Amino acid sequence: MKLSDLPTPCLVLDRQKLQRNIRTMAGNLSRHKVPLRPHMKTAKSIDVARLVLAGQPGGITVSTLAEAEYFASHGVVDILYAVGVTPDKLDQVARLNASGANVTVITDDPMSAEAIAAHPANIKALIEIDCGEQRGGVLVAEDLISEVANRLGANLLGVMTHAGHSYQGRSVAEITQIAELERSHVVYAAQRLRSEGHVVSVVSAGSSPTGRHAETMNGLTEFRAGVYMFGDLFQAEIETHGRDSIALTVLTSVIGRPGKRMLIDAGALALSKDRSTEMAPHDYGFGMVLDLLGEPTMGDAIVRKAYQEHGVIEPDPEVLAATPVGTKLRILPNHACLTAAAHDRYHVVDGGDDVIAVWPRMNGW
Amino acid sequence: MKLSDLPTPCLVLDRQKLQRNIRTMAGNLSRHKVPLRPHMKTAKSIDVARLVLAGQPGGITVSTLAEAEYFASHGVVDILYAVGVTPDKLDQVARLNASGANVTVITDDPMSAEAIAAHPANIKALIEIDCGEQRGGVLVAEDLISEVANRLGANLLGVMTHAGHSYQGRSVAEITQIAELERSHVVYAAQRLRSEGHVVSVVSAGSSPTGRHAETMNGLTEFRAGVYMFGDLFQAEIETHGRDSIALTVLTSVIGRPGKRMLIDAGALALSKDRSTEMAPHDYGFGMVLDLLGEPTMGDAIVRKAYQEHGVIEPDPEVLAATPVGTKLRILPNHACLTAAAHDRYHVVDGGDDVIAVWPRMNGW
Repeated sequence: MKLSDLPTPCLVLDRQKLQRNIRTMAGNLSRHKVPLRPHMKTAKSIDVARLVLAGQPGGITVSTLAEAEYFASHGVVDILYAVGVTPDKLDQVARLNASGANVTVITDDPMSAEAIAAHPANIKALIEIDCGEQRGGVLVAEDLISEVANRLGANLLGVMTHAGHSYQGRSVAEITQIAELERSHVVYAAQRLRSEGHVVSVVSAGSSPTGRHAETMNGLTEFRAGVYMFGDLFQAEIETHGRDSIALTVLTSVIGRPGKRMLIDAGALALSKDRSTEMAPHDYGFGMVLDLLGEPTMGDAIVRKAYQEHGVIEPDPEVLAATPVGTKLRILPNHACLTAAAHDRYHVVDGGDDVIAVWPRMNGW
Repeated sequence: MKLSDLPTPCLVLDRQKLQRNIRTMAGNLSRHKVPLRPHMKTAKSIDVARLVLAGQPGGITVSTLAEAEYFASHGVVDILYAVGVTPDKLDQVARLNASGANVTVITDDPMSAEAIAAHPANIKALIEIDCGEQRGGVLVAEDLISEVANRLGANLLGVMTHAGHSYQGRSVAEITQIAELERSHVVYAAQRLRSEGHVVSVVSAGSSPTGRHAETMNGLTEFRAGVYMFGDLFQAEIETHGRDSIALTVLTSVIGRPGKRMLIDAGALALSKDRSTEMAPHDYGFGMVLDLLGEPTMGDAIVRKAYQEHGVIEPDPEVLAATPVGTKLRILPNHACLTAAAHDRYHVVDGGDDVIAVWPRMNGW
C-alpha cells in the first residue's frame, strides 16, 4: 500500500528518522554511561518501545496507569509511573504488580507517602524533586523532602526530577545550564537523603533537550526522555534535533480552495491546538506543510488556522494553482505528544511512500 | 456508582443540563418553524443523538465519514457530511448509501462537483456557501456558484452555509446580525440557482450562537447546530447560554500541592489545549474549576497551565489549604468539541453525583 491510498487524516511515522533519533539519544547516554528509561508518553506503542529498548536495560516511563497496563500486557514490566500518584490509584498499581509488573510510583506529598507506606502491596516510590520548573516536586532545600522520605520509610526507592523548563531554553548554552540544574538538584537530593540515613538506589532525571545537551550526568542512575523519538517543530526550534529529523507527520487531503485559501482535512482534532511554536524563534501556526513525500516543496506554507476538522493554509499563488482538491500533503506537528494522541495507529514508512507496517497506539486513561 | 468512585481524568455529562439545552434549541427552532438537523460532531454519541432527535425529522449532520459510519450502524441514516468531500472519499459514501444510509455531501469546488456527477452511485450534494466566515464555501456573487451547480447537474440537492464567524460576536446584537447574514446569504444563493433553472430543495444553515439569537429563519428548510447541547465556557462568554448550562465537565483528582500550586491529573490531553476564551471577555485559561458536585465553590480558580497530564491551578490560600491530594474536582471546558474528543465515554449524572449511565462515544477518522 502507498501513502496516497490511505484515508485522511492519519498519522505517518518515518522509521528511518525514528531509528536515527533513537540511535542519537542512545549514543549520547552511552557516552555518559547512563542507561535510558524511555518515556513512552509520546509514542504509546509497543512497536516503538521494542525499537527504543534495544541495548537498554528494559525499563520504561509512563504518564498514565492505562499506559502501564498496556505495556505490562505486552511484556514490558519494569515501569516508572512518572505522574504524582494519589492514594486511590494505589490499588490499581498493586493489581498490576501482583500480575507480574513492577510499577514504581512518584510523590511529593506527605499524605500520599503515608498511604504508600500503609498499603499492603509494598509499592516502591521515588520522591519527585522540583529542579526549577515549578510544576511538581519538593524543593531540595525544604524539610518537606525529609518528611516525605520518613513517611515512605522502606518504600523509598529513590529520587527523580524532570527539567521541563529546558523547553524555555533558546540556545544550546541555556539548555546545557538547565541540564546541569536538573542533574545537580536530584543528585543533591539523593545525597541529602543518604546523609539522613535513607537508602537511595535510584537517581532519575530527564527531558529530551537535556538528554541532547547535558555535559555531565554524574550521579544519575538512569535518564528519561520521550518526545525526541519522534521530534517536532518545537523541539527543532530549541535545537533538540534538526527539522529534518521529525519522524511524525499528519497525512491530509486538500478539500477546498476557496478564495486564496487552501483547506485541508487536518484541523484541530487531527493536529491538536498546541501552539508551542508561538513563543519559538519561528512560529509555525498549527504545523508546517510538506508534500506527500515529506519534502518542503510547498514554500513556507503553514497551517494558519485550525477548526475542528478544517485546517486553513494561505499558500503562495503558484503553489495554490498547482495543488488541486484531492492532493495529499503532510503536516509537521508543533508538539508530537498531543498530535499523536488524536490518532489510534501509525502508518509506518521507511523514507519513501510505501506503507510497510501499521502500528497501533493506545490512548486514554 | 458515585462520581467519587471513578478513575480520573474522565468525562462527566449532566443529563439535566443536556436535556434543558436540547429543549431550549428545539423551542427556538419550533418558533421559527424550521426543523433541526443536529450536528453530532461534539457529542459523537448515539445516546445523545436519540435525545436530540426526539420530535425532529431524524436527520443529522456529521463532520467525518467515520461519524457517518457510526451513526448509520446505529440506525440514524439521513446524514449530511458537512465538510468538503474529496473525489477519493466518494466510494466510501457510495458504500454507506448502498448499505441503507442516505449520506449527502457538500462541495465548493468544480472538479469535486464533476467527480460527484460522474460517480455511478448518484450521490447528492449541497453547494457550500461562504456567508462571511472566509473558511469554506463559494461567495454568492461569484459565477463559481453557477459553475459548481452546472457540473453537479442532477446531483445538486441544495445549498448550505455555516456562520462560524458568529463565534467572533461579542454581544447578542452582533450575533443577531450575523445570523441574518447567514440566513440571507444561503437563501439568496438558493434563489440565484433557482433563477438559473436548478431545483434547490435544501436550504441549510446553522451554528449554535445563530440558532439561539436569529430573529428570522425565513427561507431555510433546516437548521444545524451541535455544541449547544453540551455548551462550554466560550459559548457562555458569547451568550449562547449561561455558564450554569454547561453539561460537560472533566472529573479530575488533585495529585500534588507543591509550593502554592495545586496540580491535577487533567492536563492538555484530558482538557485539550484549546484557548478559545483567551479572546473572550473572561479568560478561563484551560478551564474553570468546580467542586465534585459541579458547584463553583473553588473561588475563581482556573487551570492556568496544561502540560500533557498535569493541570496547574493557583487557588486562593484558604482553598488550597482545604483541598488535600486525592480531592476530586470538575473542570468546565473552554471548547466542548475538543475536550470531549480526548475521551471515549461519558459518565452520565442527573444533577447529583450518582453515575446513572455510561455512554460510549466514537473518535477518529
